[in-house]
Order: sequence, then C-alpha cells, then structure tokens
Amino acid sequence: MTRVTVWNEYRHELQEERIRQVYPQGIHAQIAGFLQEAGFDTATATLDEPEHGLTEEVLNNTDVLVWWGHIAHQEVSDEIVNRVYNRVLQGMGLIVLHSGHMSKIFMKLMGTSCDLKWREAGEKERLWVMDPSHPIAEGIGEYIDLEQEEMYGAHFDVPAPESLVFVGWFEGGNVFPSGSTYRRGSGKIFYFQPGHESHPTYYHKEIQRVIINGVNWCAPTRRDYPVYGHSQALEPIREKVGV
Amino acid sequence: MTRVTVWNEYRHELQEERIRQVYPQGIHAQIAGFLQEAGFDTATATLDEPEHGLTEEVLNNTDVLVWWGHIAHQEVSDEIVNRVYNRVLQGMGLIVLHSGHMSKIFMKLMGTSCDLKWREAGEKERLWVMDPSHPIAEGIGEYIDLEQEEMYGAHFDVPAPESLVFVGWFEGGNVFPSGSTYRRGSGKIFYFQPGHESHPTYYHKEIQRVIINGVNWCAPTRRDYPVYGHSQALEPIREKVGV
Amino acid sequence: MTRVTVWNEYRHELQEERIRQVYPQGIHAQIAGFLQEAGFDTATATLDEPEHGLTEEVLNNTDVLVWWGHIAHQEVSDEIVNRVYNRVLQGMGLIVLHSGHMSKIFMKLMGTSCDLKWREAGEKERLWVMDPSHPIAEGIGEYIDLEQEEMYGAHFDVPAPESLVFVGWFEGGNVFPSGSTYRRGSGKIFYFQPGHESHPTYYHKEIQRVIINGVNWCAPTRRDYPVYGHSQALEPIREKVGV
Amino acid sequence: MTRVTVWNEYRHELQEERIRQVYPQGIHAQIAGFLQEAGFDTATATLDEPEHGLTEEVLNNTDVLVWWGHIAHQEVSDEIVNRVYNRVLQGMGLIVLHSGHMSKIFMKLMGTSCDLKWREAGEKERLWVMDPSHPIAEGIGEYIDLEQEEMYGAHFDVPAPESLVFVGWFEGGNVFPSGSTYRRGSGKIFYFQPGHESHPTYYHKEIQRVIINGVNWCAPTRRDYPVYGHSQALEPIREKVGV
Repeated sequence: MTRVTVWNEYRHELQEERIRQVYPQGIHAQIAGFLQEAGFDTATATLDEPEHGLTEEVLNNTDVLVWWGHIAHQEVSDEIVNRVYNRVLQGMGLIVLHSGHMSKIFMKLMGTSCDLKWREAGEKERLWVMDPSHPIAEGIGEYIDLEQEEMYGAHFDVPAPESLVFVGWFEGGNVFPSGSTYRRGSGKIFYFQPGHESHPTYYHKEIQRVIINGVNWCAPTRRDYPVYGHSQALEPIREKVGV
Repeated sequence: MTRVTVWNEYRHELQEERIRQVYPQGIHAQIAGFLQEAGFDTATATLDEPEHGLTEEVLNNTDVLVWWGHIAHQEVSDEIVNRVYNRVLQGMGLIVLHSGHMSKIFMKLMGTSCDLKWREAGEKERLWVMDPSHPIAEGIGEYIDLEQEEMYGAHFDVPAPESLVFVGWFEGGNVFPSGSTYRRGSGKIFYFQPGHESHPTYYHKEIQRVIINGVNWCAPTRRDYPVYGHSQALEPIREKVGV
Repeated sequence: MTRVTVWNEYRHELQEERIRQVYPQGIHAQIAGFLQEAGFDTATATLDEPEHGLTEEVLNNTDVLVWWGHIAHQEVSDEIVNRVYNRVLQGMGLIVLHSGHMSKIFMKLMGTSCDLKWREAGEKERLWVMDPSHPIAEGIGEYIDLEQEEMYGAHFDVPAPESLVFVGWFEGGNVFPSGSTYRRGSGKIFYFQPGHESHPTYYHKEIQRVIINGVNWCAPTRRDYPVYGHSQALEPIREKVGV
Repeated sequence: MTRVTVWNEYRHELQEERIRQVYPQGIHAQIAGFLQEAGFDTATATLDEPEHGLTEEVLNNTDVLVWWGHIAHQEVSDEIVNRVYNRVLQGMGLIVLHSGHMSKIFMKLMGTSCDLKWREAGEKERLWVMDPSHPIAEGIGEYIDLEQEEMYGAHFDVPAPESLVFVGWFEGGNVFPSGSTYRRGSGKIFYFQPGHESHPTYYHKEIQRVIINGVNWCAPTRRDYPVYGHSQALEPIREKVGV
C-alpha cells in the first residue's frame, strides 16, 4: 500500500478566520482525508512540528510526499530541504501543489527561479487535459472547471516537463502549464497548480481525483539505487600502441 | 558577433607536468584558440583571478560561457555561482564540458546529483550522433572516434535532456549520454562529455566542431526578459454570484 | 541564403470574394512577400500547378517548405506527399500553418489523427510565449494578441512536441498548443496555428516575425545523410564458447 | 485484469529448423506463456489466421497488443494496420519488439522511416538502464547482459521518445536506443529492441520482466475519448467593433 505524507505549512488556516472557514482542520487534513479514503496509508506533517514533521524515519517510510506551502517557504530549514531532496533522488515521489512552486524543495529540484505571473481575482479557471493517454488524467473529463481560483500565468520559469497533462485557461486572459510531470534521479515529481487557500479547491471531486492519480503515478519504482563512482571495466580494454 | 568566455579552473595544468605537456597554456587557451579562429569574440577566465574572472561586467558581456572544472569545484564561491546562474536564467548560453558535470553551477541548474560512473583507463570512446537534425551535429560524421578518453558511464543523474545529440560507446562496456541540451529560464545549456585533462581531446577537429556548433546553438535569444509577479487582468472578470 | 517555397492550395481566394479581399494574390503571395523581404530566397507553389508545383527539382532546391491547405487536402496526390515526406526525412524544414494540421503530409509525419476542436466565431486569441529561450520566440513580446482568429482547441491529437513555444488562449474558453516543434529524421518541423483565411493574420507583424524565426529554426543541418542497413563491426567480436 | 494479445508473424519458426529449436511453439507462445504466468489475461494471434487473428472483436478486447514481425511486414493488410492504428489512438497499448521496428503499424505511428543499422554476428549486447525512475525498469539491475543478440545500431530513424529507458551497448562498437516510450493519441507505445529469432532472448528472466513492466505501463488510461470537431463556445464572445 502506497504510504503518503501530506505536508502543509499550516499558517493561513491558523492566522485567518476566512481561510479557517474553508479548511477548519488545515489544508493537510482535507487532502489527507480524501487520500486515506482512496486507500492510501496517509499521514500529515506541518511546519511547526519538530523537524517540520519530516524526520528521517517519517521520510524513510513515505512513498509519496505532498507539499503545500506559501508564506513561510523561508522558514523551512535547509537541512530538511536537503533531506527531502535526497529522498526524491532515491525514489520518493513528490507532489507539489499550487504556491509550493516557490518552495525551497521545488526550486532546488527544478534548477530555475520557478517564478510566474499571479493575480487574486476570484476568476474562473478551466483546466484542459492536454495528454489523454496519461494516467494522471484517468477518469477526468475533457476539462475541469473551477469557478474561482488564483490566476497563475505563463511564463512559468521551470524546465520543460516530461509530460504536460493540463493547461489552465483563466478568465482574465492568461494560460498556465497547470499539471506537469518531472523525473529527478530515481524519483518522480508532479506539479499541480490549483489550490489557493481561500477557495474550496481541494473539495472538488475531480481535483481530488487528479491528486489521487498523481500519487499513483509518483509511487516509487522498486529497484536498487544506481551505483555511482569508480567502476571497473566490464569488457577487456586493449593496450594502445605508443602510449 | 557572439561573445564567448572560456572558464577553466586551471589547476591540473599548473600542478602536473604531464597535463601541462598536453595543454601548455591551459585547457582554456586551447579552447579559446579554436573558438576565436571560428570567428567568435573570445576571452578566458580562470579560478584564481579575482572573482574567478567572472565579474558582473565580464558576465554581462558574455553571450556563451564555456565551463571546465574538476578538482576545485568547491573553491568556486557561491556568490559567483549565483551570478552565473542568474545570467543563464536571463539568457546567457552555457556549455559545460566533461568533469564540469559536478560543478556547482551545473548541479544547481540540473536540480540533481549529476553523479555518474567513471574510469581512467585510456580506453576508446565512440560518440554516436543520435539526432541528425540537430544543429550541434552539423558537419559531423556518423560518429567521432576518440582513441583514449576517460570513461563516463550511465546512469548519469541528470534530468532527461531536451535533445540527446550524442551517446558515447566505451570499450570497457559502458554507454553515456555524451551530448545533451537543456533549457533553463531564458538560457540554453549544452553538456558535452569528452575532454579529460590528460588526453588531447580539444585538439580533435570534430570535437572542436561540436563545441563551435554548441556555441552557436547556445547563443541568446534576443527578447525582453519575461515579467513575473502580480499581473493585471487582460480581459474582464465577471462578478461571481453569492461570493 | 535559405531557400523557401511557400505552398498554398489557393482555393478559398479564388472561390470566395470575401477571402480574396483579404488576400488578393493568395495567402502564398502574402507569406512569400514578407519572407522575401526578410532576406530569404523565396518562391511559391500551388495545388493546381503541375505536380502541385512541387517537382523533384523544386523540392531539391528548397530548404524550408511552408504549407497552407484546408479544403482540398484530399486532392494532394500521394506521390507528391511521399516526395515531400522523403525530403523532410532527408533534412528539409517544414512549417505547417493553421488548417494544414490535417494535411496528408502533416498527418503522415505525426503518426496521429491531428484532429482538434474548432469554431469560427471571430473571437480573440492571445498567443503566450511558453519557452522564452527558443529562437522562434526571438523579438516577440510576452504574448501576441489577435483580435479575431478561428478557435482551435485541445485536445490536439499530435505527439508531444519537442518544444512548446506558444499556447493560445481563446475568448470562448479554450486553449491550444499553438506553436510546436518536431524532429523527424534529419528534418525539423514547426507547426503554427494562426492563419484562418478570413482574417488578416499574415499581415500581423509579430505573426510574420514568428514565421521568419521558424524558417531560420527549420533550416537544414548540413551533414551527410545517415547510413542505414547492414553494417560491419567496428570492433572485434569474440568467438562465443559452445556456439 | 489487463488483457494482452501477443501477435507474431510466425514464419521463421515454421520455415527454419534452427529457429524452431529455439521457439518450438513460436515466439508468440513463449511470450504469451510468461505474460500469462505474470497474471495477465493473455491470447495470441498470427499472420496466417483470418484477419491476421486481429478481428474487431479481438482488438476491442485487447488492452495491450505485443507485436513481433520481420520477414512478412508487407503481408500485413493495410486494413488490419488501420484497425490496430485506430485502437492505439483510442487507448490500446502497443509493445513493438525487435524487428517490428519496420512493421507497417510502427512506421505509421512514428511518422518516420524507422530504419537503422544492423548486423547478425552473435555479438554481446549490454542494455543499460538510462532512467531509473521509470516503471519499465522496475526490478531490473543496472544493466542486462545478452550473450548474443543481433546488433541494431544508431542512427535509429524514429522521433525522440518521451522516455529513453534503455540504451544498448554492442560488442562490435555500436549503440542503440533499445527501450523507448511514445504516446500517440490516447495510447501508449513501448519499443524494445532485443529478440532476434535465432537467440533465446525471450527466455531471459530480466527481458521477460521488462516486457511485463511494459504491459503494465502501456495499459489504457480509462477515460472518455476526446471530442474533436466543431465546438460551441464555453464563454461569451464579445461583438467586435466594425466587423
């Protein structure tokens, strides 16, 4: 059974009544709830726990880590970021949601600024499926309508994804690569744009389905970690004349 | 005219007679020489110069930076790495050669460990062209034979390249993604594996041609840097009922 | 100097007065005009010429072929399609515009149905640059606004492109991968979506610039065509024991 | 349960005693055997059956089709090729093995010549894993050694794959993109190079594992087929002034 840890910085919900009304137990609890229901072995972790809730033991027992952060990216310690980073290279899946695009861990794995255009205008977003063959689109219609979402707009400063699963259309005239997959080392990464804290996005059944599909897609490939470093020849090497 | 700066840590050549015999003026001088001859406006910079020779002014006047480093990656200051990194995201081309695969700048741009298998056995390498349509392969035959080269072997822990231009076959039984292109921000990156300090690789005419082609391919795309951050709506946004 | 042939089925302009008003000499003449001005050695060819204007000689002297077709795809003979196809695999560049998405040549090179959603509603399109490092985006702002264009919408049934340079936002709520690059054999292909016959799209300066950039990007890589078929060993093969 | 149909032209085994000794019941029976054991609902089909064993009913009940052909590609009827092609675009997985690289169905889906270098010299091949994160590499070591295999060498005239899972090293000095994935329409394709008829390749446990993994990877994504064609606006379109 795939073991999922949902990480949330968990600040908006504690600091603002209007956000708490949307996610009374925190965004992590809402996401963990539907993932648990979907049959995953699910736990949560938050910024203010010791080691941000991401101890060696927790990470070693996590197959897929889901990440939501926004206003406190800088409070995540570099040590924990490196720990998560190493686990991803070793095969742990990572799903980065919405404003996690500028989390330390995502920026480190992308190698770019991860910057974008944004606007909080409560506008409509329509997420179009661009790759109908992709398992992350399983069970999803041609598009998902979100009555209100924060606008994230191109240019999104990330490397070209392996697969572009969704592109978002925004009422105010922008587009965004809203669902993208990446591979880093032995790990798989899925970035999914919807989920502003003030909108009930993670209650939306199709958004939930995408995240569930994402967990399945990100689950580790079971094999030994590659051997790096000095390596004996596997075939005979001929003496070179005059060397 | 494309302005190229060739950067070299320039240590092997000063410390070891046998390397100095191969590159008496340093690897940077050899590479700068054939690039100058090819018509580029070429300069060099080395680790032990002030700011590693990579002042703001130098970088602002560089279209493509060529990077060779090996034993002194850790001596490159983080400040200069960040300066190069920002220039790449803003559009400067970057060619990373051989052991530069574990330079700070390449690791930062890749988002992975950049580790690999290696062996110094003076074995034969044959570089096969995998993408005959790619401008980096212009004027190159089906393969390039190097009588002796350090073996670099898969798995190479980098993201999948945009284009895989060369794959190296090694006598000792390994393969390697030897010529790969990447895009990061507004900049283009070309990694090219040949060039161990003890072999006369950069005197080889076809290797030179590949690097010349690489400079042309990496040259900046001339346009304004994208605008990131808060962005006004370009189209009217309707009032939502009951919000 | 890059030699360009602009091919047009040239039927709408002859059959309909309202289209002729937009393109009095035909779409091909308009496109050839701005390409000639940009310094390319430019010619035109149309469906109703002998061999559709695409004789062996014409194609052998074409570096980049630009293709516009719509209502007469089925009238293009398979022989000529195969001729163009072989030239692309041998290195000729190909730019397929707008409704050329369902031309025989594009479908053959893509290996898919090339189908899409469409709507003629004179709606606004905004083409967003998704890859600021790509030479096809040189000199282009963050987006190109077209006051009226035919809607082409996802899902577009083509393989994932090598580079996704533009995504189109449509007023009516759709998105489209509007500028995409492909490699086939030794040739390069650029698909660019704008250009419905009833709108003056090819008079738009930025659209012209994109097509000019596309010609430069598609220009052939100069090298010998790969050798296929039976191949002697380049290295000694040991006798296997007991075989 | 994933339903697999293993298709084989089944000619070498009937015509040549030395091949029959390797695969007494045919290559299809050997492949179907280990797939059945792996838990798939497996059937076979061969060229000389009516409709090549690929009736509408068979294909409509096939989730993943495995294809082995060599000397009789031209005997496969275009009607059946189109039937398979349409099923792939609609979501059926396709695994093309070895000499199937020049089958009509693979060439049609790739849009290229699919040509390559080849040599029957009983030489050693070593398949290196290039993407350790890919599910097709699950349970596989760093490389797979095949004591004897037909050499297939680059350049392989296919589009760049979505993922390059294996690269083959050949004793005689060649390399090959030996395991590659593609997406076409709603379907997924895996090309895997090993499997010359005179070598016992499909008895090799790790080769079997790769094909089993390939079936899992290729299995259809369950969702409605996209709607193509004329499409109503989803958002209001403003009247344009003066049009």
